[in-house]
Amino acid sequence: MSGFDDYVRPYGLFDKIDAFGYLKDLREHPDMPRKQGRVLLVTADTPLKASRGEGKTTTTIALIDALRARGVDAAAVLRQPSMGITAAGSKGGASGGGKSSLTHPELVDWGLCGEMAAIESAQNLLVSFAEKAVDEGRLDTVLVPRVSEVPSRSLRQITVDRGKGDLPERTVLTPTCELMQIVVLSRSMEEIERRVAGMVAGTLDGRPVTFGEFVDLWRITGILTDAVKPAFTQTLEGSPVYVHGGPFANVSIGIPSLVSVEMACARHDVVVVEAGYGADAGAQKWLDIAAREYGAQWPAAAVVVTRATTWRDDPRLSWRYPFHVHRLEGLGIPTFPLINLWEGEDDQVDSLRETADGLGFRRPIAGNLFRDGGKALEPQLDDLVKALQEPAKAQADTASLHDMSVPDRIRWIAQSAYGVPADRVIEREGFQDSLQAASDLCNKAGISLEDLVVVAVKSPATMTDDDRADQDKRTVTLKKVEAHTGAGLLQVNLTTSLTTPMPKIV
Amino acid sequence: MSGFDDYVRPYGLFDKIDAFGYLKDLREHPDMPRKQGRVLLVTADTPLKASRGEGKTTTTIALIDALRARGVDAAAVLRQPSMGITAAGSKGGASGGGKSSLTHPELVDWGLCGEMAAIESAQNLLVSFAEKAVDEGRLDTVLVPRVSEVPSRSLRQITVDRGKGDLPERTVLTPTCELMQIVVLSRSMEEIERRVAGMVAGTLDGRPVTFGEFVDLWRITGILTDAVKPAFTQTLEGSPVYVHGGPFANVSIGIPSLVSVEMACARHDVVVVEAGYGADAGAQKWLDIAAREYGAQWPAAAVVVTRATTWRDDPRLSWRYPFHVHRLEGLGIPTFPLINLWEGEDDQVDSLRETADGLGFRRPIAGNLFRDGGKALEPQLDDLVKALQEPAKAQADTASLHDMSVPDRIRWIAQSAYGVPADRVIEREGFQDSLQAASDLCNKAGISLEDLVVVAVKSPATMTDDDRADQDKRTVTLKKVEAHTGAGLLQVNLTTSLTTPMPKIV
Repeated sequence: MSGFDDYVRPYGLFDKIDAFGYLKDLREHPDMPRKQGRVLLVTADTPLKASRGEGKTTTTIALIDALRARGVDAAAVLRQPSMGITAAGSKGGASGGGKSSLTHPELVDWGLCGEMAAIESAQNLLVSFAEKAVDEGRLDTVLVPRVSEVPSRSLRQITVDRGKGDLPERTVLTPTCELMQIVVLSRSMEEIERRVAGMVAGTLDGRPVTFGEFVDLWRITGILTDAVKPAFTQTLEGSPVYVHGGPFANVSIGIPSLVSVEMACARHDVVVVEAGYGADAGAQKWLDIAAREYGAQWPAAAVVVTRATTWRDDPRLSWRYPFHVHRLEGLGIPTFPLINLWEGEDDQVDSLRETADGLGFRRPIAGNLFRDGGKALEPQLDDLVKALQEPAKAQADTASLHDMSVPDRIRWIAQSAYGVPADRVIEREGFQDSLQAASDLCNKAGISLEDLVVVAVKSPATMTDDDRADQDKRTVTLKKVEAHTGAGLLQVNLTTSLTTPMPKIV
Repeated sequence: MSGFDDYVRPYGLFDKIDAFGYLKDLREHPDMPRKQGRVLLVTADTPLKASRGEGKTTTTIALIDALRARGVDAAAVLRQPSMGITAAGSKGGASGGGKSSLTHPELVDWGLCGEMAAIESAQNLLVSFAEKAVDEGRLDTVLVPRVSEVPSRSLRQITVDRGKGDLPERTVLTPTCELMQIVVLSRSMEEIERRVAGMVAGTLDGRPVTFGEFVDLWRITGILTDAVKPAFTQTLEGSPVYVHGGPFANVSIGIPSLVSVEMACARHDVVVVEAGYGADAGAQKWLDIAAREYGAQWPAAAVVVTRATTWRDDPRLSWRYPFHVHRLEGLGIPTFPLINLWEGEDDQVDSLRETADGLGFRRPIAGNLFRDGGKALEPQLDDLVKALQEPAKAQADTASLHDMSVPDRIRWIAQSAYGVPADRVIEREGFQDSLQAASDLCNKAGISLEDLVVVAVKSPATMTDDDRADQDKRTVTLKKVEAHTGAGLLQVNLTTSLTTPMPKIV
């Protein structure tokens, strides 16, 4: 038995923490001191544009600063922003802003401690081994994609070995790859090794071949040695912040690593977990993937961030914010609307509160968090703190969905998370073939398709085929599926999904 | 003015050092304490196979341990091994072995602190910006290659935007790319910025377009923030070791970063710089590129590593080792043969010494460095220590080669480093066209081809077209050239060069 500090090591301007080791120590030593921190989910309205953002990270930082100022031991767990997208100018960073900032936001945005790069190398090495397996006749088709953190649309579809083999391949963004999902979901290096072994490399005569059949797995886990360790940093006010796991909940699971949240809960009383882009992406995935299927904590409360412009920007989209707030509240999660004010919007608070009253919300929290930081929130958190102190309810709604068929599970998600009933979930031509092919692949690999957890892959800015349509006309279209047998996930592309997300360089 | 320690920060199990900051401080404060360390070059015989290695890193580690045991303040500067090649099994690591090891060799081999990965991301981001420039009509041809640290032969030649643009592109190994060369040669972030600005992105109507014309350079330098800082670690005996810069002197410059050596020289009396694969690659590049053209220190002494088998393995190649020893000695560098014994070879020392005597060498240093570490060398270093203590000679042979034409410079290298006279340097069909095209490109970019420094690109295992041929039959064939205008280098492919080095996955 050792103390937490034995698992912490400085890493430039951050610390890196051996969360696997610390949590193992906690499991093996029931007497070791620990807290039973509660998860506070910070999510947001569905953004009009992926590049805009409502200010979830800014809110998260202001919230923990405010909670700590009130004497609550709060910490935040953030996902690592995608350096490639930020460096390419496709999206700003994700490390707060103004007074609600991290101490070294530029380093968080700019590659942190190399975690994403290591995962990229490891996944690309798997592709290299798959190609070698083709040369050796162990495979005739490579299914695992290459990855790149730097976006380059032209890499989506490529031909390798030009002029000789001319093999078609594809490239996806590193944060969305199966190996990132495995790092996010695994609770030990042994679990990572087992899950990598279960990844389908490709096929031989139609039979799926997994990496466990022909790769020395220590080569992969060796590369991941430091990448599996959450980074630790602070807000400008000195509040603790853990950073670990990949972004983009629209096209992947996009949640912080499970171990980073579990570690934070053992160290603090309140742990703010950021889940974006909107509640339909990040919150849906935290609740229905992490909590239901992978043993993560059901949130004790939620904050749904929006901006004052939400009700003005596009009236035909104004149904989305109340939908998210009511949905989470309906799941028994005390849900607090939070309006992240921009300069010149202070005088709108009264009218926004009236609107919120009319919608049956709890009293909204409002403040200019960029300008005023946590101080803007501190006096408004009585109800939130009370909710976080209440004993956890019987969590009736955390049952696994494994008993449902895959199509039923997708319809269940469409109904509960996007407000589209089962009879308006449309299957595009080819969807059933794609589902059947994935099912066959799984069966041949000795896995049941039903054992995989559904991951919705969609645009960050839409929940349905046309969010501006009348409520009774909104549909969700299912396009295709792809099995990630190692991660235990079934990616389902729907509505206006980007199949291989490579945003435009700006 | 601050102390060295202000520039050091722990980074996991290593330290990272802000060498740019420390050296700037030294330049600006002549009174700041510093040493005037001498460079001891450790190089080797040309290996029979790139994957074998004579034991240069093992020797380097044993040497500094032995020198320090004798009271000499010695340190080593190593290049970062290529994680991708090691992880793929194409080559072992490069961090010593047995008693002559680093404290954390697996971490050095396995990605260090993410330096290579950051350089990879930055170079690939430049390619993304070049592609965007094509979309915007600023470029019609992309010349800068993508990079990958993980080897994948099928990536050498690829087609991107398959089914739409179908553009041919290529991929080279990260350690060999122009951005790695820029990081190795630059002495400040401003110099890196200026050199990246001078890289040719591609052409528009035949006119070269540089990145400085259309890229926000802070995006590139931002990614490189930590990558430009040398890492610091130790041998098992506690001797100081700096690690920085890319390997593969056969296909690139393959030397440690200039600042890492300069910093080490300011901190220690003797700085061992490892330069491989063989003397024809690493030593040639340290002497003719780093020292002649970029202001690096001319070595005070050299050690040329070989194995007992050198004179037995292949008699038709046995001319190479004496050639290297005599060449360096002929340049006025006191040059010590060192025989790295393997198990069961201890009894061969006398006969090896006889052979060495017959060849007119200095008395060889011999020992089983894996088994015995620096202890094996300690009593044998009198002459070496004496040579290192002698005042630096007038360095007659360090003049720049800039006055020669490019073909003359290549002939000069062939003569001096490979022993092939000018009249047996053959130009393959197309070489002159390639040279002319590079010259035109440079002229249009406002640079003279003669201002670039020649970098020989060749197989690590050969110096000529056929090293087994009789001496008067050996030839060197020039194949093609490629200008790296940002780094200030002209890559010249010769003999059995790998144009896009992507070793086989093993």
